[in-house]
Amino acid sequence: MRPVYLDYNATTPVDPLVTRELLQYFEEVFGNPSSNHPYGKAAKEAVELARSRVADLLGCSPAEVIFTSGGTESNNHALIGFAFANRYRGNHIISTRIEHPAILEPLKWLERHGFEVTLLPVDGTGRVDPAAVRRAVTEQTILVSVIHANNEVGTIQSLAEIGEIVKEGGVTLHTDAAQSVGKVPTRVDELRVDLLTVAGHKLYAPKGIGALYVRSGVRLDRYLHGAGHEAGRRAGTENVPYIAALGKAMELARERMAEESARIRSLRDRFHALIEERAGDVLLNGHPADRLPNTLNVSFAGVVGAELLARMPEIAASTGSACHDGTGELSGVLKEMGTSRAQGLGAVRFSLGRLTTEEEIDRAAQVIAEQVRDLRAGR
Amino acid sequence: MRPVYLDYNATTPVDPLVTRELLQYFEEVFGNPSSNHPYGKAAKEAVELARSRVADLLGCSPAEVIFTSGGTESNNHALIGFAFANRYRGNHIISTRIEHPAILEPLKWLERHGFEVTLLPVDGTGRVDPAAVRRAVTEQTILVSVIHANNEVGTIQSLAEIGEIVKEGGVTLHTDAAQSVGKVPTRVDELRVDLLTVAGHKLYAPKGIGALYVRSGVRLDRYLHGAGHEAGRRAGTENVPYIAALGKAMELARERMAEESARIRSLRDRFHALIEERAGDVLLNGHPADRLPNTLNVSFAGVVGAELLARMPEIAASTGSACHDGTGELSGVLKEMGTSRAQGLGAVRFSLGRLTTEEEIDRAAQVIAEQVRDLRAGR
Repeated sequence: MRPVYLDYNATTPVDPLVTRELLQYFEEVFGNPSSNHPYGKAAKEAVELARSRVADLLGCSPAEVIFTSGGTESNNHALIGFAFANRYRGNHIISTRIEHPAILEPLKWLERHGFEVTLLPVDGTGRVDPAAVRRAVTEQTILVSVIHANNEVGTIQSLAEIGEIVKEGGVTLHTDAAQSVGKVPTRVDELRVDLLTVAGHKLYAPKGIGALYVRSGVRLDRYLHGAGHEAGRRAGTENVPYIAALGKAMELARERMAEESARIRSLRDRFHALIEERAGDVLLNGHPADRLPNTLNVSFAGVVGAELLARMPEIAASTGSACHDGTGELSGVLKEMGTSRAQGLGAVRFSLGRLTTEEEIDRAAQVIAEQVRDLRAGR
Repeated sequence: MRPVYLDYNATTPVDPLVTRELLQYFEEVFGNPSSNHPYGKAAKEAVELARSRVADLLGCSPAEVIFTSGGTESNNHALIGFAFANRYRGNHIISTRIEHPAILEPLKWLERHGFEVTLLPVDGTGRVDPAAVRRAVTEQTILVSVIHANNEVGTIQSLAEIGEIVKEGGVTLHTDAAQSVGKVPTRVDELRVDLLTVAGHKLYAPKGIGALYVRSGVRLDRYLHGAGHEAGRRAGTENVPYIAALGKAMELARERMAEESARIRSLRDRFHALIEERAGDVLLNGHPADRLPNTLNVSFAGVVGAELLARMPEIAASTGSACHDGTGELSGVLKEMGTSRAQGLGAVRFSLGRLTTEEEIDRAAQVIAEQVRDLRAGR
């Protein structure tokens, strides 16, 4: 039997309906969308259909959607492309201390190239205080970038509130919504964002495709330089199969999100209750309410998370983000939340998804409870 | 009946063996290679198998291969990543006037950020004089980038000769081999290159995957900043299905290239002979011998290429590169080769591939001859 997969925040399997959608673009409709013949035109149509599907979920215009190679490229493009295009207006960028490395690293790069970056702290639940954003804005501030939902603990930020503050100062707001798109509503006007990052492989599209929403009127330099694809905004022959896949995945998300998130939230809460009941002394990391419906990051008192996972080959979960899994270090996100070292090292992230069943949850809870008891008893 | 596809330089269909290889990574082996559980480990193994297959075709070590989102990213990464990492040694870069926009545009960007760029001219066959490279090298030169085989006319450069000259000056040599990999030998030591760009969709892997060869010891900044994927050299969750696809496509190329290129060359030459015989007054654009075996760029005297193509829905070909198809402008590559305006506007690029048959070639030649005769007769 394969391990129970509870690591949907690391990546998701591709939905079979998404696979079916993309398959036709490998051998059949294989043209280059830039080609001026039927092979090319059919490919271009697929790209534009996908763009309108992405726009539908985000509540924006298709012309405001750029396809990229994934969340990391979308974030690099948003931050570096915006910074260079708006350098004449100022050189200050505000973000948070609990961003994904795909935000923190481009910001470090920008610091080496003349920009100043302020990283805001978070509270014990992983939330940024919108008032702190207001205080951090200076005459030089051009951009604020705040992660929508944190990948490790699932805490969701008050983007709309931050967006309102930011607008007052004529500043642009970007959000890395890699973890939230498809799990919670992400309509750009409701979030009050100007730039938004989508990562396909977090919502049942393949790894290697993403999108960047760019509000009409926002100035952005290209990040990949070359030929005039994507209306001159992103060079590189379009990845037609994956673009079609992302479009389909976002259409599925739009159709199913309300029902699916309720189902997953209920499973997640059942799981939480089961492990609390059977293992005891379970500490929640992250916000108790404003949190992704699929994410449960908990510490088992007296237990090291990595040790626990190593004893449970029946369960595939993670001590933190996949991107720095296995390093044995305390997660930077938990550290910034003020989590104690013991609790932080005890953390395990369980993230549920479309294929998670009640039977899997029950089985996993039983295994966890047994192993936690054994570890605590020194067995 | 679908049009005869003679636009393999724009893009190729995915080989069914490649599709079969990649399919397992959507729903079955779907893990994140950075995850520390069986789902992740299986994905990581797939990535490393593919890396060794890419290395086998290039004649390099697997550790010298970085996977990217395609030729455009590989070129941006090579040029901009190298320029910033070696800025302390100099600020001068040499390239040619017949590069793909994915080279020319990053170079323009670098010019706006403190670098100086010299673009070398080509002769009437599209070749760069290696002696001109020698003359262009200054104390400040850090990088030379020369396209291996031009996408429009197929002319192949004397990279080994250029490589030898470049080495004398302690300069690094990059080549955009997007069009040549899989069609002609591209072993990095024979080409004497330090950086080499691969684009998957030109060799029967999907659009949206590429690789960059980086000779051990060459300093290169990251281009996509984020988490520590690809040994810290390229952030972004690995596109496991497409990486596996590229590996398989390069394995197929290694196994089949000699035989397949001979077959395609022979078809191409038959095609050339047929249209010369039946249409007459056919002028070859590009080098008569040192040329990709699949590429035939010709001008029909007195005929405008775009008009000819518009009259032949039975044939899918191109007036130039797909990236600027349909603009009605004279191709920059032909202009740089000193091609007359009339001949340049008459150019049509036919590019053959793995699925091209003799029957298709014969049918295409007949259609072309008829239409050329009609156009010349003013019908």
